[in-house]
Amino acid sequence: MAVKVIDVNVGIFDENDRIAEEVRGKNRENGTFMINIMASPGAGKTSTLLRTIDALKGDFRIGVMEADIEASVDAEKMEAAGVRSIQVHTGGECAMDASMVQQTLQQFETSDLDLLFMENVGNLVCTAEQDTGAHVNVEILSLPEGDDKPLKYPLMFRVCQCVLINKIDTRSYFAFDDAAVTERIHRLNPQAEIFFVSAKTGEGFDDWIRWIREQAAKEMGK
Amino acid sequence: MAVKVIDVNVGIFDENDRIAEEVRGKNRENGTFMINIMASPGAGKTSTLLRTIDALKGDFRIGVMEADIEASVDAEKMEAAGVRSIQVHTGGECAMDASMVQQTLQQFETSDLDLLFMENVGNLVCTAEQDTGAHVNVEILSLPEGDDKPLKYPLMFRVCQCVLINKIDTRSYFAFDDAAVTERIHRLNPQAEIFFVSAKTGEGFDDWIRWIREQAAKEMGK
Repeated sequence: MAVKVIDVNVGIFDENDRIAEEVRGKNRENGTFMINIMASPGAGKTSTLLRTIDALKGDFRIGVMEADIEASVDAEKMEAAGVRSIQVHTGGECAMDASMVQQTLQQFETSDLDLLFMENVGNLVCTAEQDTGAHVNVEILSLPEGDDKPLKYPLMFRVCQCVLINKIDTRSYFAFDDAAVTERIHRLNPQAEIFFVSAKTGEGFDDWIRWIREQAAKEMGK
Repeated sequence: MAVKVIDVNVGIFDENDRIAEEVRGKNRENGTFMINIMASPGAGKTSTLLRTIDALKGDFRIGVMEADIEASVDAEKMEAAGVRSIQVHTGGECAMDASMVQQTLQQFETSDLDLLFMENVGNLVCTAEQDTGAHVNVEILSLPEGDDKPLKYPLMFRVCQCVLINKIDTRSYFAFDDAAVTERIHRLNPQAEIFFVSAKTGEGFDDWIRWIREQAAKEMGK
């Protein structure tokens, strides 16, 4: 399937925070709540998004910005599910920055959207270092990756308002200590919301969906 | 457990290839075969290394360079298993470059080693962009990450001589197409060796261990 693809260039680092504020301001003006989804490759970003959008699409007009280095498979999956989406190619860059988001928004009409999800490049390092202009940051950590990831990628857990622990349907296969991961995340970020979910079965999604509704209401009055 | 930690600084990009050749030459002179292990966070780098070292330690003197942004948990695991190891902290950098390896080798005595493994930062993007000075590059892709990763992170699969598909013990939990992933990898890199393994059960390790022995023999005459 042919999806629209945008090639973007990395911005000047010092300028990033200013542009991030511009992006946030513009989206707020339009009434568009933007959620930046970050995770390792294969943690389940796309499948989590598809289930999340399905749960919210009755009440919100939703769009998705898919960021990848060069592939377009995720935007194709979104289009196949009937979700308005755009594929962004980062030209080798390991994360979206605010300038790349701004360039994308100049070509991807989102002013009529209530919710805009961005699926960032699969990466726990660079993505955490850049303010993209999103209103909230969400990290998806999957059970097979292990409960030690907050120790190894602390910045990611500091910059997120919410952490989804995904693939809990695979519990019997992986040793994963819920209490330990919760303690490690909260030591870095006491305010972080943590939800244990399965994008495959839908388990745990009610709380996560409620959280998005609350955040959108708080930020945008929706 | 107290492990030795080295803090390194990123090198000048243009200089990287020259320094990588210096690192390779010096290790070759010492008879030390260096293997750079790359993967997403949680793909099983440390557990694969532990099982690999266990299979080879009777015939080779082995050391491990553990690269992380700030944690030291992996070097602690290696020390606990009696493996000579050092923890490198990259100061926020998402990958080791040749200069960082060179700085580490100035403080980590490896001249008496036959095999030196480097466990790179968990990342499929930045790690692939840098020649570290290793003799071979190996990527570990785990089943839960999905068979589409060669489409999304092609450079990683281009720069590796060998790809381990790990966690095959979790087959019943994840839809993963062996033929598709093989075809996708070989389209990017026809020479790549691919082994399907489980670091948990040891399945598939014989071929991988044989491959390391062959590479070390070819490169170093060991």
